[in-house]
Amino acid sequence: MSVDAVGTTRRGRGARRAARQVLDTQMLPALKRGIPLTEPMGAEQIARIDAASMDILENVGVVFRDDIALADWKVAGADVRGETVHLDRGLVRELIKTIPASFTYHARNPANNLPFGNDHAIFVPMTGAPYLRDLEDVRRNPTLDDLANFHKLSHMLPAMHSSAHHIVEPYDHPISQRHLRITYSSMKHSDKTFMGMTTSPKNAEDVMDMCAILFGKEFMETHVVVTGNCNGNSPLVWDETMLGAMRAFARCNQPVLCSPFVLGGANTPASVAPTVAQLNAEALSALAYTQVIRKGAPAIYGHYLSTVSMKSGAPMAGTPEISLMNMMIGQMARFYDVPWRTSNTLGGAKTFDAQAGYESASTLMAVMMSGANYIWHSAGWNEAGMHCSMAKFVVDAEQCAMAHRMASGINWDDFDEAIAAVSDVGPGGHYLGHPHTLENFQRAFFMPEMFDNNSIEQWQAEGSVEINERAMSRAKDLLNAYEEPKMDEAVNEELLDYIARREREIPAADALNQDY
Amino acid sequence: MSVDAVGTTRRGRGARRAARQVLDTQMLPALKRGIPLTEPMGAEQIARIDAASMDILENVGVVFRDDIALADWKVAGADVRGETVHLDRGLVRELIKTIPASFTYHARNPANNLPFGNDHAIFVPMTGAPYLRDLEDVRRNPTLDDLANFHKLSHMLPAMHSSAHHIVEPYDHPISQRHLRITYSSMKHSDKTFMGMTTSPKNAEDVMDMCAILFGKEFMETHVVVTGNCNGNSPLVWDETMLGAMRAFARCNQPVLCSPFVLGGANTPASVAPTVAQLNAEALSALAYTQVIRKGAPAIYGHYLSTVSMKSGAPMAGTPEISLMNMMIGQMARFYDVPWRTSNTLGGAKTFDAQAGYESASTLMAVMMSGANYIWHSAGWNEAGMHCSMAKFVVDAEQCAMAHRMASGINWDDFDEAIAAVSDVGPGGHYLGHPHTLENFQRAFFMPEMFDNNSIEQWQAEGSVEINERAMSRAKDLLNAYEEPKMDEAVNEELLDYIARREREIPAADALNQDY
Repeated sequence: MSVDAVGTTRRGRGARRAARQVLDTQMLPALKRGIPLTEPMGAEQIARIDAASMDILENVGVVFRDDIALADWKVAGADVRGETVHLDRGLVRELIKTIPASFTYHARNPANNLPFGNDHAIFVPMTGAPYLRDLEDVRRNPTLDDLANFHKLSHMLPAMHSSAHHIVEPYDHPISQRHLRITYSSMKHSDKTFMGMTTSPKNAEDVMDMCAILFGKEFMETHVVVTGNCNGNSPLVWDETMLGAMRAFARCNQPVLCSPFVLGGANTPASVAPTVAQLNAEALSALAYTQVIRKGAPAIYGHYLSTVSMKSGAPMAGTPEISLMNMMIGQMARFYDVPWRTSNTLGGAKTFDAQAGYESASTLMAVMMSGANYIWHSAGWNEAGMHCSMAKFVVDAEQCAMAHRMASGINWDDFDEAIAAVSDVGPGGHYLGHPHTLENFQRAFFMPEMFDNNSIEQWQAEGSVEINERAMSRAKDLLNAYEEPKMDEAVNEELLDYIARREREIPAADALNQDY
Repeated sequence: MSVDAVGTTRRGRGARRAARQVLDTQMLPALKRGIPLTEPMGAEQIARIDAASMDILENVGVVFRDDIALADWKVAGADVRGETVHLDRGLVRELIKTIPASFTYHARNPANNLPFGNDHAIFVPMTGAPYLRDLEDVRRNPTLDDLANFHKLSHMLPAMHSSAHHIVEPYDHPISQRHLRITYSSMKHSDKTFMGMTTSPKNAEDVMDMCAILFGKEFMETHVVVTGNCNGNSPLVWDETMLGAMRAFARCNQPVLCSPFVLGGANTPASVAPTVAQLNAEALSALAYTQVIRKGAPAIYGHYLSTVSMKSGAPMAGTPEISLMNMMIGQMARFYDVPWRTSNTLGGAKTFDAQAGYESASTLMAVMMSGANYIWHSAGWNEAGMHCSMAKFVVDAEQCAMAHRMASGINWDDFDEAIAAVSDVGPGGHYLGHPHTLENFQRAFFMPEMFDNNSIEQWQAEGSVEINERAMSRAKDLLNAYEEPKMDEAVNEELLDYIARREREIPAADALNQDY
């Protein structure tokens, strides 16, 4: 027997299938919201944020550091002064109203297609970590094999609706060619939805080419098959890299997350509502630009949101103001009738300790109450995004499954039957043997597998294992049970040919030249 | 210099005061809710729960294992058959309508009095742990000194509104006399509100006597000075101990938490809405009985709520159904216009690991969205209540402070001023030096002291300390800085005389005899 990447002996296909059945890897449907949203602003307060944002767009303006965008804006009728674009509120409202409120997000396996927008939500793993904490809890630079393992876990964890893209940065591959291998890894190891790289305009175009191979160019003209992220430079700047990538996506009718990158107090005012007003102005300016690029193209209201410690300058997670701002931004996105993205299970802890747990769960709960559609960074994020933890990835995904259950709302189907059981059992009895219990216990109450709820005696007898170790062990079990959802062989070969050609064209050493 | 209980050298009063100032021990006001509640049921569904609960009370009935209560119920007009009391919905509604929706909860320091009920909420530490994890992370049986330390921490932690009562069980004192020492410790080490023991009817009467010494018997006739907890035995049983304690409190016009003790799926049906219907029936039966005891006495809708793993039988925490049930129970309590208590920051973890963090934060966030008035078990709870952790106590209290900030809502006071700062700073600038930032940064964004948000390099340079160790260190600092809020000396002597007399009357060995 050979030893595989996760250090245990390979077992046969049958054994892997059996393990998968025990592990339950069936993807959950997109969440359809069944509990109310938390909306801390009334109509008057929403109008106040909207008015402040529009004032900023008209009077302060937004810098677009990109000649094509500036030319586009002039044609669209904006007041362009140097790099600063002043956007009239009428123009902004006119442009954003063609953004679709909802669409279907397609996967290569149509069974994994997702309804998106309005009261639907999807969970997407974290991306962009320069380090990982691996299956032995070692913090190190990741490789393409590590990235593949995260894509495999994303494929197998029920609450994950996407394999995302560069969950971790594969340092063993040249940066100039990396986007090709990352995209291929997302496509190959999972048949769920995925994300496309936006690290340069040309990289984004390569992603569009690869998507065309996988889905067909014509299909992409009318169907969403990939999402990309474009970060703004708060306050009020969009740069050439992001704008070029945005054009590559929007021209192909694929949505980007228009994401101001907010460090509250550092690049926004030190106050909750004004921070939301500035962020909202930034998001609107990019959303409006997507419609200049291609009227009717899908686009997503995004943001990355942290508050900054005024003692150390460090970004914080799980703080009350982040929760409030999430709730408020959700209200603004719904006010404009645009789908929106937020960030989930963020943590600033250096290890998978209780801090990481508090931060992640606080963020998750606030996000669930806020009603985000695209719930990004839903697994693995720790150390302010500097590392992705294998253990946390597995635990976060289970937390998302629990949140999915909670936000789906109350099941009333068996109400009368269960109330009849109260009469059967009567005062002082117990329900464990009652037919209603036996029939319903599997689905009645979520039983988190990553939580240990046994007595301390039993826990000690089992080796006193804390959650970090339990989750690493679960990740190993999952990876051992992984089976690749094969692509069509011709498509696979075409993708590999494309990558080979592009790798010949792009010098490995020429990381920063965007002209290829 | 002498060495004190927490293992460091004693410092002078001035040094302690300086430390307290750095540590910020000013109690937060009672939370006044500023964000909307999460209400997953519509009026029709509330009516459905209400009707099912009333059907249970009328047709199944509730067992009161207590001759006095049964006699009381007969006088009140209930249909009593053996130990089973069948309660007509008209009678229940008539009785509960005299329960005050709100009151002031008095502390011996009037500055710490709390508005209670409606949109106000208070945080109360956990109670009842047979073990603690101490300042060296050793799990052991607690002593009176340990209990005193928890009372001191409760006194100093801003978000804690109460010193509660037996946070941990003081095993170095005879069980039959323990309630006296516990109550005295709560009264002595903190001048915030506290709780009274309900471990027997006579113990509850002793607590009433001690409260009369501290507050005056006449004052108690018209003012709430203490709360007690009475657990029900689900399904549908109240026992003699709890009912006798309930009488002791209600006769003195002091409120008890009428708390069904629910292990969802074991002592309720395996379904969310029917569990709420049964719990609601149980709570209503006790709430109604408080009004039989004394019409108009304050009383609190309570519950302890867990779901049970159908694999192991173990109670779970932080699960989606507990969150949903909290939201639903809140709606029922508001439907009856009675204040309600829930449980907070619960965990089933054996150590203060990430599991404890996830469980606690999930519970806290759900509780905040549910709108509970009396948020019990708000600090220290772990291992399903089997131990109270010194470290977790400190971290949970900070989490409550953050939740307090979140639920207080959005501050709009500086909106126009901060929006003006957006113009001043402009695209691409930063806010760190702006006058608005300098003026507002302290209050703008919560900076959790127990979270480490520094870079990994700085964290490593400081010894790679995880949150458990940081929090133990913080607890030591707090205890070193503690200064007792002195009671009136005559009152103190009267309390000590009372305890001495009762300890002579109650044989130390006679733990279970309730006749003293």
